[in-house]
Amino acid sequence: MERVLLSFGNGGLENANLINKVFLKYFGNFAPYVAEDSGIFSGNLGNKFAVSTDSYTITPIFFKGGDIGKLSVCGSSNDVAVMGARPKYLTASFIIKEGFLISDLEKIAKSMADEIKANDMILLSADTKVVSKDALDSIFITTTAIGEIKNTNISSKNLKKNDVIILSSQIGVHGASIYCLRNDIKLENNLQSDCASLYPMIEVLLDNDIKISAMRDATRGGIASLLNEWAASSNCNIQIEESEILIPNEVQGICEILGLEPYSLANEGVCAFAIDEDCASLALDLLHKTILGKNARIIGKVIDGNDKKVILQSRWGTKRYLDYPEGEILPRIC
Amino acid sequence: MERVLLSFGNGGLENANLINKVFLKYFGNFAPYVAEDSGIFSGNLGNKFAVSTDSYTITPIFFKGGDIGKLSVCGSSNDVAVMGARPKYLTASFIIKEGFLISDLEKIAKSMADEIKANDMILLSADTKVVSKDALDSIFITTTAIGEIKNTNISSKNLKKNDVIILSSQIGVHGASIYCLRNDIKLENNLQSDCASLYPMIEVLLDNDIKISAMRDATRGGIASLLNEWAASSNCNIQIEESEILIPNEVQGICEILGLEPYSLANEGVCAFAIDEDCASLALDLLHKTILGKNARIIGKVIDGNDKKVILQSRWGTKRYLDYPEGEILPRIC
Repeated sequence: MERVLLSFGNGGLENANLINKVFLKYFGNFAPYVAEDSGIFSGNLGNKFAVSTDSYTITPIFFKGGDIGKLSVCGSSNDVAVMGARPKYLTASFIIKEGFLISDLEKIAKSMADEIKANDMILLSADTKVVSKDALDSIFITTTAIGEIKNTNISSKNLKKNDVIILSSQIGVHGASIYCLRNDIKLENNLQSDCASLYPMIEVLLDNDIKISAMRDATRGGIASLLNEWAASSNCNIQIEESEILIPNEVQGICEILGLEPYSLANEGVCAFAIDEDCASLALDLLHKTILGKNARIIGKVIDGNDKKVILQSRWGTKRYLDYPEGEILPRIC
Repeated sequence: MERVLLSFGNGGLENANLINKVFLKYFGNFAPYVAEDSGIFSGNLGNKFAVSTDSYTITPIFFKGGDIGKLSVCGSSNDVAVMGARPKYLTASFIIKEGFLISDLEKIAKSMADEIKANDMILLSADTKVVSKDALDSIFITTTAIGEIKNTNISSKNLKKNDVIILSSQIGVHGASIYCLRNDIKLENNLQSDCASLYPMIEVLLDNDIKISAMRDATRGGIASLLNEWAASSNCNIQIEESEILIPNEVQGICEILGLEPYSLANEGVCAFAIDEDCASLALDLLHKTILGKNARIIGKVIDGNDKKVILQSRWGTKRYLDYPEGEILPRIC
C-alpha cells in the first residue's frame, strides 16, 4: 500500500506529484489556481481578491532572524503580495501540543502581532486546538492571507520570450541556517533567516506600472522549483547565469559539506520577477532603492523554445539543466 | 512555568481564558472579530466578506456520518454561513504524517471534493506539509472559508430583550458518537455525526428577510458555550426550557454513563438562531420546510437583566445556571 513520504511535502517533484495524483484528481474541477501561489476570487461588484493559505511546521520554532510566528505571517502574506495584491487580512489557526509553554506561545504571538502591525494588517479569524503530547511534538500554525488585487495580469502562466528574470537578493540563507540548527546537524554558522514581508518592495514596482509577467517568492524548493514551475506553466524555456546569482560563502560552504544544491534551498525573503524587457532597467533601479531589493540582479531571461526547461549557464559558459529538486531536500523549513 | 493544557482547546472557559490572556493581549488591536465565528472585511468598493478559519484535528479521522475531510469543509463554511454569507470560497492546508496511507488521503480528498461540489464552492488555495512520524500521529486539516455577506446585521453582540432562541435540531450526536469511537471508550451505539453544511437552511431565512439578531453553529462546547458567549457579548440574560431541547435517548444514556453534560457536547449540524419575536413564527415555519431544520424548536428567549447568564428551566419549573463548559470535555472532536 502506497504511503505518504516526507519528500512529498518538500516543494519539489514529489510534492508536485502528490498534488497532481491525489488532490487534482478530486479537486481539479473546483480548484482553478493550484499552479499559483494564491487563488483569486471576485466580489459581486467585480473587485478581485488574492487568497493564499499555508501551514507552518518548521523546526526549530525559534531561529536566528525569526520564529514560526513571524514566518507564518510573512509566508502567506508574501504569497498574496506576489499576485499583485497588498496583503491586508489574515487568519491564523494554532494547533498546540499539550504541555507547550505559555511563555513560548506568548513569544510567538508577540512576533506575529509585531509583523501584523508593521504591515498594517487585520487578523480576521483565529482558532486554537490543543492536542495530546502523543499526537504532536510542538506547534503548527496555519495562516491565510487576503488582499485586493492591484494588477491582475500577473501569473506564472504569463512569462513570454525575452522577459527578464530578476532575483531580489542572495539565496539560500533561510534553508541553510534552519538546516544547521537541527539537532541532528548542528553546524556552527553566522547565518540568519531572511524571513521578511516582501510587499513593501513589490509595491514600488506596482506603483510605477512596471510590466510584471510573473513574480513569486522562492520558498520551498528554492529558485529551482520556482523557475521550473514557471517554465512548465508558461510553456517556455528559461536560461539563468550562475555568475549573476548571489550565494553567500557560508551557504556555499554548508551546501558543499552536506551535499546540497543552493538553488533548491528555501528562502523566506527572496522574490523572483519575470519582467517585460522594456521595463527591466527601470525595475532594477526601483528595486535598488528598497531595503529588500538593494542587491537585486538580472539573473537570466526567457529564451526560445517551449521544452519547459531551466538552463543554468556556468561561469565558464557550460550549460546544464536545473531540475526540479527531488528527495527529502529540507523537510520542515517552513 | 505555565503550560498549555488539553482543556485550553475545548471551546469552553479555559479556551476563552487562553484567547483572552495570550492572544488578545497581543492581537487585540488588530483582531476586532475575536468574539465572532468569522471576521468581516470590506473591499474597496464597499462590499463585505465574512472569513473564518479552523483547524481540524479530530480523532478518529473516519467516523459514522463523515470524516475529517467533510468536517473541515462543513465546519469553516458553517462559520461563514452564520454571519449571513454564502460560503463560496475555501482554502485547505494539509499537515500529514509521514507514512499516512495514500488511499486514506484519497478518501479524505474525495469526501472534501463531494462537499465542495454540493455547496458549489471553489477551492482557492491549498498547501501540503509532510512531517515525520514522531511529530504527528495522523493528519490535520486547516480550512478557511470566505463568503460575501447578504445580511450585515447579524452578530453575537446584537441579541436584544424578547428575541426568541431557536435551535434547528436535536443536540449531542456528533460529540457523543465521536466520544464512543475513541479507543479508550468504545461504547456500542447507533449514533452518527450530524456533520452537515448549514447554509441551505440559513439561506431560506435570509431570502425571506427574517430579522436575525445572531446565529451560530453549536460546535465545540455545544449550546452551553454558544449561549454563554451570546449572553456575554450582548450583555443579556437568556432563559431556555429543558423540555424544548431535543436530546436523543442514546445521547442521554451516554452522557449518564460517562458523566457528561449534553448541552456541552459538540454538534456539527446544529444551528442556534436569535430572532426578533415578531418573526419567530414565520422563521419556524420556514425552517420546518428545510432538511436540517425540520425539527427546529423555540427553546427559549432573551429575558430581563444584563448579568450575562444563561438560565435553564427544568421540566419541573426549577431553574439553574447553564455555565460555560469547563475541563477536558471532549478533546479533538473537531
